[in-house]
Amino acid sequence: MILQDFEKKIFKFIRDYKIFNKYDKILLGVSGGKDSMSLLHVMSKLSKTMGFEISVAHLNHCMREEADNDEAFVRQACWKLKIPFFSKKVDVFTYSKKNKVGVEVAGRKLRYEFFYETLRRLSYNKIATAHHMDDLFETMIYRILRGTGIYGLGGLIPIEEEITKPMLCVDLEEIKNYVTINNIEYVEDKYNYSLDYARNKIRYEITPLFKKINPRYKESFFRLAKIIWSYREEVKRKFEERSEISKDSLKLRLENDFFDGEIIRIAFLKFGKYPPNMEETEKIIKMRKGGVRKINGLSITKKSDSLLVKI
Amino acid sequence: MILQDFEKKIFKFIRDYKIFNKYDKILLGVSGGKDSMSLLHVMSKLSKTMGFEISVAHLNHCMREEADNDEAFVRQACWKLKIPFFSKKVDVFTYSKKNKVGVEVAGRKLRYEFFYETLRRLSYNKIATAHHMDDLFETMIYRILRGTGIYGLGGLIPIEEEITKPMLCVDLEEIKNYVTINNIEYVEDKYNYSLDYARNKIRYEITPLFKKINPRYKESFFRLAKIIWSYREEVKRKFEERSEISKDSLKLRLENDFFDGEIIRIAFLKFGKYPPNMEETEKIIKMRKGGVRKINGLSITKKSDSLLVKI
Repeated sequence: MILQDFEKKIFKFIRDYKIFNKYDKILLGVSGGKDSMSLLHVMSKLSKTMGFEISVAHLNHCMREEADNDEAFVRQACWKLKIPFFSKKVDVFTYSKKNKVGVEVAGRKLRYEFFYETLRRLSYNKIATAHHMDDLFETMIYRILRGTGIYGLGGLIPIEEEITKPMLCVDLEEIKNYVTINNIEYVEDKYNYSLDYARNKIRYEITPLFKKINPRYKESFFRLAKIIWSYREEVKRKFEERSEISKDSLKLRLENDFFDGEIIRIAFLKFGKYPPNMEETEKIIKMRKGGVRKINGLSITKKSDSLLVKI
Repeated sequence: MILQDFEKKIFKFIRDYKIFNKYDKILLGVSGGKDSMSLLHVMSKLSKTMGFEISVAHLNHCMREEADNDEAFVRQACWKLKIPFFSKKVDVFTYSKKNKVGVEVAGRKLRYEFFYETLRRLSYNKIATAHHMDDLFETMIYRILRGTGIYGLGGLIPIEEEITKPMLCVDLEEIKNYVTINNIEYVEDKYNYSLDYARNKIRYEITPLFKKINPRYKESFFRLAKIIWSYREEVKRKFEERSEISKDSLKLRLENDFFDGEIIRIAFLKFGKYPPNMEETEKIIKMRKGGVRKINGLSITKKSDSLLVKI
């Protein structure tokens, strides 16, 4: 099978970051927009080269008139490509109102809930979404503006637990070229136009200014993201080295270096809690021996050079 | 002596980052603009509290009609505050043309040359410049757009060798308030208006958009910078641990972790050479044993788990 440049690029990215291997069973999140239709076509081709299995999950969010047509469109595309198709209808608006969360947040929550349900039902092991380099770069800027450390600055990650993003290495322009050249049909995902205020400002006002300063700004962001992904691996290794996990607590060995703060933040994430900010982290590190603190729902005790973190 | 909030903030920053101590002899770079006139007043006050010595260096760049008046203005201010004043006249335009470098680059080069000359002549040990939080944030954005790793993302650094920047913790608005409240006179540093294209775009077009997304965006950048300054310390520690320096070469021990790349880049900086980019660094790490490469003027040999770097 001959791969096009676009497909080769994704293939290389998948190999470099060990995103998929031969025995994977991958659920693709496909809305029907050009991003996810590209994902569908590339993954369908690569499944033949690499040998993994794929199915498609589509959440019908009932958020606009065309929602049922979109579902039928993706179902049809899967039928043509001989790929199993699963869908579910959920009323995102109602959920959003009932739970008092934004439509964006509600949509994401319900989508991933559906993905995980389907994953378990099929005994699949990975979920793939169509996030691309423009999403990556926007997320990085958004995070810097809202406040982030180095770990969080990576933004979107190629592979983290079951969630994979094999298209982070291509940008929207390349996606547009790919669907045009290959006559790939897609639906206009009007949902995009309802992006929140910050995302809109970044996409339509800030990005053009970045482009004027450096037409290749996206590559700068992508390169930095790659360095941070590798930094995250280092932080995780340090966490493994310095932590001991028991039933309801975590013992962290402090080594009085830069990573003390990073492993404390990971400990909070392990318990599903919001990590302390920089100043709070500093305070934890500087706690006196025998001291106890309660932070974001976790109780922390200092014993000689270790921290005991408990729910 | 009672310190104002603005002065206290700088005092705390100086202590937190160990920028100055009692026995320091500090040369202040003062152009006469509001930033450096604030530096002059704060440092004059702190010299009495902390006990260090200060002098002022002013480069008359001959770039506009008012240059001689600016020099006289700073001289007068120093005379009033009883602070030794040193100046030098240099024709930046002529230097810029002769050496085919931009006026900004020429100005910076000549300024620091003059600072170091004066530093040595007085047997002083530190130089202080008036860079502030807006400069820090602009530099960070500029670097990300042009391409940077984590190390470089820190932008401006509170203390690096002789150069110190004690005002990175305050922004332009706070500086404006400080000069207004204290009736500190300053010259309009029109030089600022000749900023290069990228800086102008960042300052006058991108910044207002950032502000709309998060009015406290500067604090987000500042917090990230602080994390990266601490990261830089970690990288330097790793370099110390893993390097052996001899007359004309450097031996680096590779440990197959994230820091291999960072210590290789520092090695290049040690020899005053431009560091390799990410892809080149990866290639160096993956060199086969016994292999030799020549990169940016340095010759690199791989021996078991070490790299030998030579001029």
